Amino acid sequence: MNAADTVTQSRRRWNLDPLVQELRRNPMSWLLALVPVALIAAKLVPAAHTLLFVLSVLAIVPLAALLGHATESIAEKTGDSVGGLLNATLGNLTELVIAAAALRAGEYALVKGSIAGAIVTNTLFMLGASFFLGGLKHHIQEYNRATARLNAALLFLATIALVSPSAIAKADLVPGAAVTQKLSLALAVLLIVGYGLSLLFSLKTHREIFAGAEHARGSEPAWPVGLALVTLAVVTVLVALMSEIFVESVQKAAETFGMSQAFVGFIVVALVGGAAEMAVAFSAARKDRLDLSVGIALGSACQIALFVAPVLVLLSYVIGPAPMDLQFWPGAVVMVFVATLVAAFITSGGRSAWFVGVLLLFVYAVFAITLYLWPPPAQ
Amino acid sequence: MNAADTVTQSRRRWNLDPLVQELRRNPMSWLLALVPVALIAAKLVPAAHTLLFVLSVLAIVPLAALLGHATESIAEKTGDSVGGLLNATLGNLTELVIAAAALRAGEYALVKGSIAGAIVTNTLFMLGASFFLGGLKHHIQEYNRATARLNAALLFLATIALVSPSAIAKADLVPGAAVTQKLSLALAVLLIVGYGLSLLFSLKTHREIFAGAEHARGSEPAWPVGLALVTLAVVTVLVALMSEIFVESVQKAAETFGMSQAFVGFIVVALVGGAAEMAVAFSAARKDRLDLSVGIALGSACQIALFVAPVLVLLSYVIGPAPMDLQFWPGAVVMVFVATLVAAFITSGGRSAWFVGVLLLFVYAVFAITLYLWPPPAQ
Amino acid sequence: MNAADTVTQSRRRWNLDPLVQELRRNPMSWLLALVPVALIAAKLVPAAHTLLFVLSVLAIVPLAALLGHATESIAEKTGDSVGGLLNATLGNLTELVIAAAALRAGEYALVKGSIAGAIVTNTLFMLGASFFLGGLKHHIQEYNRATARLNAALLFLATIALVSPSAIAKADLVPGAAVTQKLSLALAVLLIVGYGLSLLFSLKTHREIFAGAEHARGSEPAWPVGLALVTLAVVTVLVALMSEIFVESVQKAAETFGMSQAFVGFIVVALVGGAAEMAVAFSAARKDRLDLSVGIALGSACQIALFVAPVLVLLSYVIGPAPMDLQFWPGAVVMVFVATLVAAFITSGGRSAWFVGVLLLFVYAVFAITLYLWPPPAQ
Repeated sequence: MNAADTVTQSRRRWNLDPLVQELRRNPMSWLLALVPVALIAAKLVPAAHTLLFVLSVLAIVPLAALLGHATESIAEKTGDSVGGLLNATLGNLTELVIAAAALRAGEYALVKGSIAGAIVTNTLFMLGASFFLGGLKHHIQEYNRATARLNAALLFLATIALVSPSAIAKADLVPGAAVTQKLSLALAVLLIVGYGLSLLFSLKTHREIFAGAEHARGSEPAWPVGLALVTLAVVTVLVALMSEIFVESVQKAAETFGMSQAFVGFIVVALVGGAAEMAVAFSAARKDRLDLSVGIALGSACQIALFVAPVLVLLSYVIGPAPMDLQFWPGAVVMVFVATLVAAFITSGGRSAWFVGVLLLFVYAVFAITLYLWPPPAQ
Repeated sequence: MNAADTVTQSRRRWNLDPLVQELRRNPMSWLLALVPVALIAAKLVPAAHTLLFVLSVLAIVPLAALLGHATESIAEKTGDSVGGLLNATLGNLTELVIAAAALRAGEYALVKGSIAGAIVTNTLFMLGASFFLGGLKHHIQEYNRATARLNAALLFLATIALVSPSAIAKADLVPGAAVTQKLSLALAVLLIVGYGLSLLFSLKTHREIFAGAEHARGSEPAWPVGLALVTLAVVTVLVALMSEIFVESVQKAAETFGMSQAFVGFIVVALVGGAAEMAVAFSAARKDRLDLSVGIALGSACQIALFVAPVLVLLSYVIGPAPMDLQFWPGAVVMVFVATLVAAFITSGGRSAWFVGVLLLFVYAVFAITLYLWPPPAQ
Repeated sequence: MNAADTVTQSRRRWNLDPLVQELRRNPMSWLLALVPVALIAAKLVPAAHTLLFVLSVLAIVPLAALLGHATESIAEKTGDSVGGLLNATLGNLTELVIAAAALRAGEYALVKGSIAGAIVTNTLFMLGASFFLGGLKHHIQEYNRATARLNAALLFLATIALVSPSAIAKADLVPGAAVTQKLSLALAVLLIVGYGLSLLFSLKTHREIFAGAEHARGSEPAWPVGLALVTLAVVTVLVALMSEIFVESVQKAAETFGMSQAFVGFIVVALVGGAAEMAVAFSAARKDRLDLSVGIALGSACQIALFVAPVLVLLSYVIGPAPMDLQFWPGAVVMVFVATLVAAFITSGGRSAWFVGVLLLFVYAVFAITLYLWPPPAQ
């Protein structure tokens, strides 16, 4: 083996070509340039809140896309079960990292807003835009009702479990903080057990039902594992850095735009955190593969309810200034319940046309306008 | 051409025969005699509120039927798209004219009650009575699930958009009137845009889905356009006159019967305004054409949410003493939400028997009794 | 006919063998020994509330099973229509007897809790455990969607009628007791009329839809009518005696376990009262006859709403210290509504797997935990 070979091998092992190709292929990637800009701006002009807010938001979008691709590449290499586990656990990593940053800063209204908002945004906006964009190209789109129904049932039950205590609490007297905290902890443990069982269900015992969607998803060329792992690690750190800038700047910036914390969490964080997945769902809808779009939208919302929300509660004991509970403000309960109900009802039909998408987007717009004009009382 | 021919031609152009036939054919037409009676009574005994209330209510029923027939005759002549537009816009003209009269008098509780009531009455009473009457004659009735599902999805989303802000508002703090008004205006604009898109959908891009119902509806012989136009104009004026008598007398009459304003709007106005459509829906159900009944009931409710409600908000700026908002009292939100949910769930099955109708009517009765015994606080 | 024959005949008429066989066959029967133990303990140690509570609860379980078998045996002998009527009316006799005992003692929170709890327990726990236990043995279980849908529609409408007034009341001002009482009485009459019509529907006009489930249920050998009638009478008296011990001890015992009255009614009474039916439903699910399980769960919940609840209101005028109304505390409204909605949605699919059952059980667990930590205000 001569020196040239060694170099070639070394290049092959650390071949950055796929990463470069991805950056070239995806126009959104140019936003990556904003990552260093945001970091420098945070040092130089820490008081320019609106600028920092906009920069950090824009920088997170391409990072989330990279994170998604890296996760999928690792998943593809590690075999079905472990890969599925990785995909399911890291699929909402961006939301988790942003929320964790807000948790550390004690911004619990932002965290809860982003949990509720991610469920509503996935079920109304992502689903609605998929139906709308797909419907513009295809007259009537049909998809697998049985799978959609099962997915919708899981989502419905998961969110019911998440928001029921808040609904019951809202209806009755406001209890002491101690009871709320105990209830939230019990609920978090229950949800995580449920999440574990859902993985057992979707990756092991009833894998074949969800198989189609998983496979179809990995249509882009996979990266080598080494590159994927490094990307995963580096990008997660970058997202965490951006999230910190975001959380620090959001309060002041929100005031400038006249937005409440809850609105920012509900709409902005949810849209930013889910941007990468939305790109995949929309593209699938245009290709008349609504099964995939519906699967991503419902699956992601389900994961927020069963995994992200309870993990944040548990994390709050470790990194937060105080334990966080899972009591949502009443308006959020209404929105999450209605959004899931609508998604369950709409997707159980197995048919779609553009106007169904429009109506889903309208309900989302009604929620957004209401929340903007009418922020919940500060907590 | 001799004189006799001219007379014949003139008679043909202004042939009143169809109108006379309609009056003779329909036993309800004799109630038309109450129109002049009501007008005279309003002059002679303006203080006999209960009498005027009963007279005006009874007089509106046959007028609504004439309005419906005239609209359909014009629609049939003007071609599919324009005709469909006319049908869709003028289909709830009676409700609109009555509500406009209440608007002018500043009776906003009556207006809001009639909006919520029309949705609930169409989805529970019209649908329930159709299932019941059809089920008495036919053992099990089946209808097109796909169309019913699409219709139900549109209705569900439309009413969600209409009442969500009220639900969210109810749940949180009561905001200032300024915010409420701004939200209602934004919502009204959004709903009207949605209505425009729904017309584009049902009349243009996906016409074939709704075609069956439209065509089947025009089973009665159409009138000449001239007669139809004149009838439309004259009858609208008469409905407006009756509505004014109705609105003036309703408050005192309601007190006599122990009914609240909201109850009158919810039950009486909704039943009176929808009487003509109900007659068509019930007759179709008896002929085992439940598709048509379901289409009328769901379509009409949808139209109230997407068209009548926002138009009334906008009208309130022009003819009302003050702008009207779209905040419904909490009980109305519960009823509208439950009614639409029930309708969506029931119709998605595609099968019916008499007892399903009975249960729908029971839920309606429960609502009516609750509202009667338990009027919402005056607004 | 000689003397020996007469003896044989007499023995045949009063043959206790079937009863003995049933006791031997069913391991739960040994709990019957607790009936005299509880009676004696109530005399000797009337202050040992926790002991009496546990004894009475355990003694009711096998009595309920005997009651179920006796009812079915009579039903089988009396022909289809009368038999069905008996089955439908006496199917929830245990719940009724327990609730009547609570009614006599004026424990209205316990009564209302047991009504709401029976609906929630049947729809979430019985259905969920059936899906779970069946799903452990069978990969995917399919059942008759049409029947399940009809059953679910009936249940949904029945519970809507039951809890709507509470929901509307909750939303608006709290009215005077007089109005509440009038409304509850009107509602009770309406529900009982609805119940009568439901019997007409399921036993007469549309018998064939429900026929499968009824027939399948009577798989165990029937007892002679004489034995069945005597068993029915004796066991009902025993259940009444046990219920009285239960109701007297429950308040103090609940305090010991840190449970509220509503929790005891909601969870304990519902589980104890429904134990016998659950055994049948679970066993059917294991045999892949989910149609039967779904039919029992939904039918029983429906019966509580349409029959048991209104009968208890009417009974309160006769045996209670004061008339009972049908106003449920807000949390119960949320739970009953959500449970029925979930059941209707899940069963309309016609397919099940173990994880669907797990999620139903999770929602039930969430409700139970919330209710335990967060009891409604005392009424």
